[in-house]
Amino acid sequence: MVRFGHTRVLCTASLEGRVPVWMRGQGRGWVTAEYGMLPRSTHSRTMREASRGRQSGRTLEIQRLIGRSLRAVIDPARLGERQFIVDCDVIEADGGTRTAAITGAYVALRQAIDAVLPGHEQDARPVTGMVAAVSCGIVAGAAVLDLDYEEDSTAEADANFVMTDTGAIIEIQTTAERKAFTRDQFNQLFDLARDGIEHIVGLQRSALAKG
Amino acid sequence: MVRFGHTRVLCTASLEGRVPVWMRGQGRGWVTAEYGMLPRSTHSRTMREASRGRQSGRTLEIQRLIGRSLRAVIDPARLGERQFIVDCDVIEADGGTRTAAITGAYVALRQAIDAVLPGHEQDARPVTGMVAAVSCGIVAGAAVLDLDYEEDSTAEADANFVMTDTGAIIEIQTTAERKAFTRDQFNQLFDLARDGIEHIVGLQRSALAKG
Amino acid sequence: MVRFGHTRVLCTASLEGRVPVWMRGQGRGWVTAEYGMLPRSTHSRTMREASRGRQSGRTLEIQRLIGRSLRAVIDPARLGERQFIVDCDVIEADGGTRTAAITGAYVALRQAIDAVLPGHEQDARPVTGMVAAVSCGIVAGAAVLDLDYEEDSTAEADANFVMTDTGAIIEIQTTAERKAFTRDQFNQLFDLARDGIEHIVGLQRSALAKG
Amino acid sequence: MVRFGHTRVLCTASLEGRVPVWMRGQGRGWVTAEYGMLPRSTHSRTMREASRGRQSGRTLEIQRLIGRSLRAVIDPARLGERQFIVDCDVIEADGGTRTAAITGAYVALRQAIDAVLPGHEQDARPVTGMVAAVSCGIVAGAAVLDLDYEEDSTAEADANFVMTDTGAIIEIQTTAERKAFTRDQFNQLFDLARDGIEHIVGLQRSALAKG
Amino acid sequence: MVRFGHTRVLCTASLEGRVPVWMRGQGRGWVTAEYGMLPRSTHSRTMREASRGRQSGRTLEIQRLIGRSLRAVIDPARLGERQFIVDCDVIEADGGTRTAAITGAYVALRQAIDAVLPGHEQDARPVTGMVAAVSCGIVAGAAVLDLDYEEDSTAEADANFVMTDTGAIIEIQTTAERKAFTRDQFNQLFDLARDGIEHIVGLQRSALAKG
Amino acid sequence: MVRFGHTRVLCTASLEGRVPVWMRGQGRGWVTAEYGMLPRSTHSRTMREASRGRQSGRTLEIQRLIGRSLRAVIDPARLGERQFIVDCDVIEADGGTRTAAITGAYVALRQAIDAVLPGHEQDARPVTGMVAAVSCGIVAGAAVLDLDYEEDSTAEADANFVMTDTGAIIEIQTTAERKAFTRDQFNQLFDLARDGIEHIVGLQRSALAKG
Repeated sequence: MVRFGHTRVLCTASLEGRVPVWMRGQGRGWVTAEYGMLPRSTHSRTMREASRGRQSGRTLEIQRLIGRSLRAVIDPARLGERQFIVDCDVIEADGGTRTAAITGAYVALRQAIDAVLPGHEQDARPVTGMVAAVSCGIVAGAAVLDLDYEEDSTAEADANFVMTDTGAIIEIQTTAERKAFTRDQFNQLFDLARDGIEHIVGLQRSALAKG
Repeated sequence: MVRFGHTRVLCTASLEGRVPVWMRGQGRGWVTAEYGMLPRSTHSRTMREASRGRQSGRTLEIQRLIGRSLRAVIDPARLGERQFIVDCDVIEADGGTRTAAITGAYVALRQAIDAVLPGHEQDARPVTGMVAAVSCGIVAGAAVLDLDYEEDSTAEADANFVMTDTGAIIEIQTTAERKAFTRDQFNQLFDLARDGIEHIVGLQRSALAKG
Repeated sequence: MVRFGHTRVLCTASLEGRVPVWMRGQGRGWVTAEYGMLPRSTHSRTMREASRGRQSGRTLEIQRLIGRSLRAVIDPARLGERQFIVDCDVIEADGGTRTAAITGAYVALRQAIDAVLPGHEQDARPVTGMVAAVSCGIVAGAAVLDLDYEEDSTAEADANFVMTDTGAIIEIQTTAERKAFTRDQFNQLFDLARDGIEHIVGLQRSALAKG
Repeated sequence: MVRFGHTRVLCTASLEGRVPVWMRGQGRGWVTAEYGMLPRSTHSRTMREASRGRQSGRTLEIQRLIGRSLRAVIDPARLGERQFIVDCDVIEADGGTRTAAITGAYVALRQAIDAVLPGHEQDARPVTGMVAAVSCGIVAGAAVLDLDYEEDSTAEADANFVMTDTGAIIEIQTTAERKAFTRDQFNQLFDLARDGIEHIVGLQRSALAKG
Repeated sequence: MVRFGHTRVLCTASLEGRVPVWMRGQGRGWVTAEYGMLPRSTHSRTMREASRGRQSGRTLEIQRLIGRSLRAVIDPARLGERQFIVDCDVIEADGGTRTAAITGAYVALRQAIDAVLPGHEQDARPVTGMVAAVSCGIVAGAAVLDLDYEEDSTAEADANFVMTDTGAIIEIQTTAERKAFTRDQFNQLFDLARDGIEHIVGLQRSALAKG
Repeated sequence: MVRFGHTRVLCTASLEGRVPVWMRGQGRGWVTAEYGMLPRSTHSRTMREASRGRQSGRTLEIQRLIGRSLRAVIDPARLGERQFIVDCDVIEADGGTRTAAITGAYVALRQAIDAVLPGHEQDARPVTGMVAAVSCGIVAGAAVLDLDYEEDSTAEADANFVMTDTGAIIEIQTTAERKAFTRDQFNQLFDLARDGIEHIVGLQRSALAKG
């Protein structure tokens, strides 16, 4: 269970016996993610995707992002022909659910892989680094880290940064919500994100140490 | 959050502005329920219904049961033209999720109605009684209350009882799993269930008292 | 074709070459059921499920019930790795369609198995007993057997009993429609059902004798 | 219930209160048809369309054809703003289900309209003529009327003719199954169909006279 | 890209490695077609089928017709166990899209087969003839070839003829739009179509000669 | 029709009478986009989304991006209660389809709005600026503009920039494909994108001038 402010996301990783059909027989593994929100995790109730009969574009977009972020620090050849599915279910949403999900999914995946494939030497580990994510945005002209729902709904721009523990970039998504913004403002968001991720990586390390 | 042994179900009730189309203009209210299981709530991961694109027959059956059980203690005319939706999401499943859901859903619905329609005199209350449910079964020939996953998978028969606080029957579902059973055995299940429900109603009263 | 009063259900059993994927290679057979209502079988036309694009919760619930009831008197190991599908299509509905379907489905399944696997000694027969079902309910305070549409819509409680020819219980479903009822009333329903099933088993025997 | 040889189709017409959305407020009526096959109507069991979650292209094609054929003899302005839905459900299929359905659907629709809108003078009747249909084909080089399943599966060409009681053409569909055929052969099919339809119109008149 | 007046259809044929499941291991090939319209190909925008989540009955009907027409001039045994899919996408629609699609699909398929299976002797060619199609109709009592949208919407009858280069019939579909028509009128349509197809076959020959 | 190298996208904007339900009665307009690929636009044939019955996550993600980008330069209050839908259909895909689509969609939308709402003074125009997009990536360590399919499949990182004619940022999406990259490399991508967009805005101006 990851918690950022009032946002709470339950992340669990499961080992699936088999990789997807298009990967079979190559000896390589796969990591994928699924994302969902409980209907009452939001301020006003959202319709249940299972009863609507399909996942929204937003849901698909987020679970693709989580999967890509995790795979960026995985060496598929070292995984063996195994698939891990990481489920990220939002219990309470107050901004930044996708970045919280990535951050928690990494910890869950790491623990699951360590349980299934223990005792690897440093240079044979399937997990080749750490990955964490933060959301930030421009509110009233200023760059702000980790917006809550209130701030998010008045933000002029919205950004998600996914980076490794060494500060390398895995994914950046920035969107102008109300008006286009400048490169200068973008750079402020970047600085803020880099510091935020450094802090979060520390929290991930503690969580992993505790087991 | 209701917990019966290792089974944990998150129940929340939401007020929807409008009743279903087929009820509009009649001045009466409606209560409905939705049920879901997180993919990792079960011992081995279950496929997410939202990504499969439809709810299983089991899910639909359970949410219909929860809805019927709740409506048995609701006076729709006193609700006014309002709809309440109760979401029951299973976080961890270890047997008896549907009866845990009914028990928790009642508490969540009661609190939501009290919040929206406070201060009613006894005889104008939309909620006309209490409802609780237990599961039980026949294991190795003997009637057992509240089976866990282990017991459930070896049970010869499986039963769910939904009753009011005064011991009146709202719904009974009994199924022979391995072999047909006798009326005598059924009566033992009934006795067990009646006592179990009495106990649970006490727990519901405490939860409601605490608010 | 089963007929109970004005309710008419067409039941046919078909041999499918293969069992479902999850059962392959175990040498055991499977029996499943599908249920449908012609749009005009009801008093006012019901929308066709094929054109709505999905089966309702009620349909899924009923076909699961029929399947479970039939499997209760089948020894899967003696069937061999074969699947039988029993189709129950309601041509005219006037109450009690699910219990009529179970009753007719048993006869159709028995005939189909006898045709495919003839000449078994008593103790090697795949069909280990008989199964029949009745609906009953509480109308104006009194227990009544086999409700028609008129009675059904004013019933205070509604019950379906599935039992074997020896009076053992396979499935009981009872629901309070308007108000919760007492254990005493439930016992009256049970007595009525047991007698009703005895009568129906006699009719099934005649049908099977005629072939 | 229409019967052509071993083909049996149950046709019923229902009055729906309202016309489709795109026709509202124009004072004109609408006639539509739905078609379905019971899974066991065919020689080997066909999958139920409701459980597959969609109607096949063949089903949609046939119900569009039935609807067009019926509307060819309906004056929508005289119907008033009403919709009739004709359900054609195949109980047993042995070739020619679509033409049997059109023939039976006409009788069912005519009876339903007469019941709802009785006593019209000749020149104000919503039903402006009669419609009937036959199937025919080329088997071993010769034109044959009303093919059964056996013949149909070896036919070189397959044709459906929908005509009025005065011999005017409403719809012709001809398909080469094995090899292209000549205009001469087509004309033989036409002659055969015209005679067949004359005969069928006589049967429809008897059915309508009996009520 | 086929163009008939303002109707433009993009036809491409692709080799798929494998035949459909139900044909495997028989050494025979298969040809199928898919049809779609760009939302803005019509005068007023049509809803995108991919976003509605299903293909309309009309689309399914047309792609089945294209597939049947192509298979009428294919010898499946000579194709080998290969599947060709012909995509027909309407870029601009002004009447007669299905007949334009058949005409263009034939050219695309022929080119694709020649590329994949070159150098066959005359009597071993998988493509055994030519196929072309025209639409025509009765406008103001007169038979007219190749109706545009304007004419089509006022036509009394509508017909599609699919024929070989030797004038043999593959498929005829004729529908009365406003009123039933006579056999005489039908024969005029037929004459017109035969001449039209002769002309189109000439155009196909030129296109194939150019490559 | 926009063309970038071998990528060709057909963009058309249509006026829909009505805004989505949730916006009615507010006097404001809406712009949305739909995206599709012809099955044969890619090097090997892609399955048709209409026949699979749903749009992929990738398609939904892209059409959401196009819609957001267009809305960033639209003043909804000046549009009036009207909706414009921009269809972007990929005829041939060779990398950068989403950025080509945005660039072409802007031109199509601008032309459609000018046709429907002509003669606005500068300060009342619904379109408040220009929007264009480019794709770029890191190939063999170096930043490269407008990758083709070949380059794209070997790129270490992939980026899409959406900017206004004044160089303000509307959306940035960057993804590490093979390995995480540095902020320095990101800045090189940014420089390249800014210059590319300047060039493209010039091409858009020419296209708009020609009409």
